[in-house]
Amino acid sequence: MLLSGGLDSATVAAWLQREGFEVHALSVDYGQRHSIELNAAREIAADLKLADHHVLQLDLRGVGGSALTDLEMEVPKGKSPTEPVSQEIPTTYVPARNTLFLSLALGFAEARGAHDLAIGVNALDYSGYPDCRPEFIASFEKLANLATREGIEGRPFRLHAPLQDLTKVEILRLAHELGVPVDKTISCYDPREDGSICGLCESCRLRLQAEMELNQ
Amino acid sequence: MLLSGGLDSATVAAWLQREGFEVHALSVDYGQRHSIELNAAREIAADLKLADHHVLQLDLRGVGGSALTDLEMEVPKGKSPTEPVSQEIPTTYVPARNTLFLSLALGFAEARGAHDLAIGVNALDYSGYPDCRPEFIASFEKLANLATREGIEGRPFRLHAPLQDLTKVEILRLAHELGVPVDKTISCYDPREDGSICGLCESCRLRLQAEMELNQ
Repeated sequence: MLLSGGLDSATVAAWLQREGFEVHALSVDYGQRHSIELNAAREIAADLKLADHHVLQLDLRGVGGSALTDLEMEVPKGKSPTEPVSQEIPTTYVPARNTLFLSLALGFAEARGAHDLAIGVNALDYSGYPDCRPEFIASFEKLANLATREGIEGRPFRLHAPLQDLTKVEILRLAHELGVPVDKTISCYDPREDGSICGLCESCRLRLQAEMELNQ
Repeated sequence: MLLSGGLDSATVAAWLQREGFEVHALSVDYGQRHSIELNAAREIAADLKLADHHVLQLDLRGVGGSALTDLEMEVPKGKSPTEPVSQEIPTTYVPARNTLFLSLALGFAEARGAHDLAIGVNALDYSGYPDCRPEFIASFEKLANLATREGIEGRPFRLHAPLQDLTKVEILRLAHELGVPVDKTISCYDPREDGSICGLCESCRLRLQAEMELNQ
């Protein structure tokens, strides 16, 4: 499974455990400005006692084209934490990111004899990224079974995206229910040097608005 | 386009030029035992005067599961250069490699405003790798157009695989016809330290058999 250090993927990890899977997690150090999330991923993996956790290096700064990997670009901010998140694809979109990360997970899985992949995408309260939509997830699963020895020899891969149809509030509720260390997860795209969140990027706003709704 | 330093991708580069494309090439330093191919890729890019050439670092040794990235595994060899290549998937198969490399090419292309991707796979005289088959190529093109901003906003990507239906002899003939610096390309999976080829791995055998046929 892909573990970012954010709320969603941490929830997927705990969900997989509840479903009875032995969970092997993969994080990618891709030159993201919020690389602090990798520390969160390590803490979450330890906290949930995952079977193992790898951090792969894949520097996407050379690819460019995203506010998350290009420090010259600015992360778009709302005027307040309660400003709704637009459904236009924002500049934080990283070209081909989920395709790449899922390909890495696929290689890892096939080399280790695993056939279940998982990712924490959701397509309700999200930023409109194309590679978070159910059509993309279904298409990647098909590709995985054409691309690999396991797939074409009749031992197919399944790609789990259990948060796909949940709202952010539902994810938050599920996280608490499953005992996810929610306080250790970090969703912010543009954290300050001391590790505190900006509170205004799309990712902070989606999460803060869900937290407010949950506590109402 | 993906440029490995081998005969096939060099031929694709020259083919794209003949078709009128400005060619931007991507090579991946993935911990392959035949990393000498990266030097060949650089020479070919210079020789053909490609628009640019990037070498990305993505260490797949941590993924494992392949004789090309695991030095403890042996590259399978034939008894002689003329021994036919089996159609069983050999241990030189690298899990998810073409999916990963095409994802990188897709990210590069989208970040730069390009919409044509190209790869030098062929599925006639090949090693039976699942991610070289036409079904895989077609499926990746579909995925690319679901995974990206450009794809979903109606500026689709095309994935060119012009060698798909050619035999190795036909590729060699095309390479000469297009002025590819054939002598600078390297196909061997297990070259000696001095850069000379082993002559017995599947890749050497496919190429040597084609060269013999061409010179008959």
